[in-house]
Amino acid sequence: MTSPPSTDSDLDLPVEEFRALAHEVADWTADYLGGVGSLPVLPSVQPGDIRSTLSSAPPVKGESLTQALKDFQDVIVPGLTHWNHPSFFGYFAMTGSGPGILGEMLAAALNVNAMVWRSSPSGTELEELVADWLRQLIGLPDSFDGVINDTASSSTLHAIAAAREMAYPDLRNEGMFQQTRGRIYASEEAHSSIEKAALTLGFGKSGYQKIQTDEQLSMCVPTLRSVIQEDIISGLKPVAVVATLGTTSTTAIDPVRRVAELAKEFGLWLHVDAAYGGPAAIVPELRELFNGWEAADSIVVNPHKWLFTPVDCSLLYCRRPEVLIRAFSVIPEYLKTPEKEVGRNLMDYGVALGRRFRALKLWFVLRYFGQQGIVDRLRSHVALARELANWVDAAPEWKRVAPAPLSLVAFRFISEKLNDLALDDANHRIMERVNGSGEAFLTHTVVNGRICLRVSIANLKTTKTHVRRTWELLQQAAASEVGLDG
Amino acid sequence: MTSPPSTDSDLDLPVEEFRALAHEVADWTADYLGGVGSLPVLPSVQPGDIRSTLSSAPPVKGESLTQALKDFQDVIVPGLTHWNHPSFFGYFAMTGSGPGILGEMLAAALNVNAMVWRSSPSGTELEELVADWLRQLIGLPDSFDGVINDTASSSTLHAIAAAREMAYPDLRNEGMFQQTRGRIYASEEAHSSIEKAALTLGFGKSGYQKIQTDEQLSMCVPTLRSVIQEDIISGLKPVAVVATLGTTSTTAIDPVRRVAELAKEFGLWLHVDAAYGGPAAIVPELRELFNGWEAADSIVVNPHKWLFTPVDCSLLYCRRPEVLIRAFSVIPEYLKTPEKEVGRNLMDYGVALGRRFRALKLWFVLRYFGQQGIVDRLRSHVALARELANWVDAAPEWKRVAPAPLSLVAFRFISEKLNDLALDDANHRIMERVNGSGEAFLTHTVVNGRICLRVSIANLKTTKTHVRRTWELLQQAAASEVGLDG
Repeated sequence: MTSPPSTDSDLDLPVEEFRALAHEVADWTADYLGGVGSLPVLPSVQPGDIRSTLSSAPPVKGESLTQALKDFQDVIVPGLTHWNHPSFFGYFAMTGSGPGILGEMLAAALNVNAMVWRSSPSGTELEELVADWLRQLIGLPDSFDGVINDTASSSTLHAIAAAREMAYPDLRNEGMFQQTRGRIYASEEAHSSIEKAALTLGFGKSGYQKIQTDEQLSMCVPTLRSVIQEDIISGLKPVAVVATLGTTSTTAIDPVRRVAELAKEFGLWLHVDAAYGGPAAIVPELRELFNGWEAADSIVVNPHKWLFTPVDCSLLYCRRPEVLIRAFSVIPEYLKTPEKEVGRNLMDYGVALGRRFRALKLWFVLRYFGQQGIVDRLRSHVALARELANWVDAAPEWKRVAPAPLSLVAFRFISEKLNDLALDDANHRIMERVNGSGEAFLTHTVVNGRICLRVSIANLKTTKTHVRRTWELLQQAAASEVGLDG
Repeated sequence: MTSPPSTDSDLDLPVEEFRALAHEVADWTADYLGGVGSLPVLPSVQPGDIRSTLSSAPPVKGESLTQALKDFQDVIVPGLTHWNHPSFFGYFAMTGSGPGILGEMLAAALNVNAMVWRSSPSGTELEELVADWLRQLIGLPDSFDGVINDTASSSTLHAIAAAREMAYPDLRNEGMFQQTRGRIYASEEAHSSIEKAALTLGFGKSGYQKIQTDEQLSMCVPTLRSVIQEDIISGLKPVAVVATLGTTSTTAIDPVRRVAELAKEFGLWLHVDAAYGGPAAIVPELRELFNGWEAADSIVVNPHKWLFTPVDCSLLYCRRPEVLIRAFSVIPEYLKTPEKEVGRNLMDYGVALGRRFRALKLWFVLRYFGQQGIVDRLRSHVALARELANWVDAAPEWKRVAPAPLSLVAFRFISEKLNDLALDDANHRIMERVNGSGEAFLTHTVVNGRICLRVSIANLKTTKTHVRRTWELLQQAAASEVGLDG
């Protein structure tokens, strides 16, 4: 190779300016990670506050990045809800861990795009490798093939699309128009992304059937059976069933083995939503919760939830990758490559053509923590959740509303002085009071028709001190409810 | 607020270790950006080489990140196709610019998730703001509302889903099953993502109609009209038409004003694919190429293609955001927030619930370069492409196969000694020889049934020296073809 052409006329930010700013960013990030626990978790801003503070039009002439970084610190950061805060307990809490952040930084620097093998050999093969590493960790057989999507919503969309492809042999040519009406089943506790996938894929609300749950908030398999049987009698076509291992509302566990038997009996595609729960399968004593999921056709597990990986990173495992490819592969001339026969082209596995190098951050996370380090950390989260669950169980004015098999506790403030509706309002107010303190952040859900609060523990900075303080804040807020209303 | 709980028991990578590694990454990245031009653009690896070099199983005990970083440098980087290389001319070239990389680093550090306003006020509002900045820059009216998706494939899927929602009033409840067969139209030069969207959304191949193009490779509007009319007579339902401003193969420009008139006449949704071309609308003398696109219902523009922003970042502009929301909004209890009425919840605009803070990098890019800086840089790319086009036009053994209105040139080696099929093979070999040199990387396409080569110029490091050297390599490779075959 001859000596490379000069890049003197580089029109980008000059490299040495970049270097200086990148070091500033490195320090800022380290300071942020070290100090985020002292920031308010939830900012005290109102809708529109951030936007109105910033210039409403782009600059005509370029500006110094120093000014942009200043605005970032002065306006953007104070307007953030801090997902990295040790007392962030909302939604599904998560961790952008140090190793994961370093992986993201390098992925941004490389800016490769693994559409086809040739466009990024390392990007493609590291994605294959790391998907297989996680498969081994969670104990799935090697018949499962994994690809990385952005979010669980996308992964589930792809899974249901594969189910649809399997159910309607002439779908690719004919589309959905003349097909027998199909049905997708999931428990009434299943994630909204399943309904969204059903709508996107053209099943309609009438093609999506929620199955009732038992007192554990797990799918009732006998109900599922009778719904399927009735649907068949009505001339409808059962297409797929989704079992959730760790629902968003309360981390309820569907009886996946029995659901799998039913899916097999009726020829349905079984998709398992373990987006949050999946990593718990790495922990030996929690593995039994997942018994039977190996019979699934597809499984989603999100390392960006409970596996210390920055958003976005969602693994879709599929036991029938050829069906997924049949559903999604469209290869134009400008993307044909001679390696087609031997190298994997990740664009064939889904909607997105462009593909960030997400595998890098997950590889760093799995290497730095290792299997044992992950097990230890997940155990610590489960232990914190059990401790909180015990406190709730021991408190007469609180009631736990669901089992807490993983790292999330759902509970409700109760009082004989108030009726159910008043208690709903009280629980909302308690949550807003705790969130308004800036010391902790939690979100709510509805269980059996009643408002409940959720504490989701999945951040590596979260210690017993944070959980205990949040419990104190909840109790204080509840006391003032009784004071106000009693 | 009381003093925050201690984070002494942080189970993450210790902050000071993170700091030291982040500084290493900062230096590595600066060195990489400064030196990438001296690396081979395309690595000399075969499928499987990378994966077989790395451990096939995850470590049981955690490892030092120093080892992971070493493997990154020794194994991963040498197996990459370098999209940051100044002589990367394949697919659509792009730039992960310094300001964009800094934005990504900070986004990774924050790890916020702007599902709903409350979960990330700054994330939500900066996305609104920066979408509006870009809208102003490209000269669209303020009736267009923008959201950021990962890729153009996703943006187009969402646009066609909105078109479908508009066309079938009872879609949300009934799905596609009993609907009149619908049809999506795009030129035969349109991107594969449109067909993929049609398949995903259940239209089937028979619901997707490619419209022939004229000698400029632009959509034939009279053909579109007659196809629509025939479809209506056949009882089919025209749903949407996609006009492309800058096709992937040759950057052909569809006559969007006339397509828009036809769309209006027949009540079709008009989606404009300006994923690559869109930023050119910022350049005054190129704006006329876009005349008429303001009549579109939706437009996709990808800052991660020709606007210096690291992947992924795709803007979907929609003049009927309420239709997009109708197609995609599914709000479960655990995502209900009191701000619903006033703050925007970005999850309502598409499939993905989780949402990275992509706005930050784009904001940094637009601020650092400014309108004038962007115009200057896009002009320099267009000028380089015109220069290459002139060289091709002046060379008797090369033939330009399409207009080059933007920054991509498509051409074919020709020789009277060889028939068309032999020339196809020769062009393939020429490409492989240039790519095999490691000095430049380009990809091919098919125009009018014949293999052609493409040079796409969109990297800020690319100078005339790189383009000229690539042209020399092409000529050398062509000469050896004639020598071999003549």
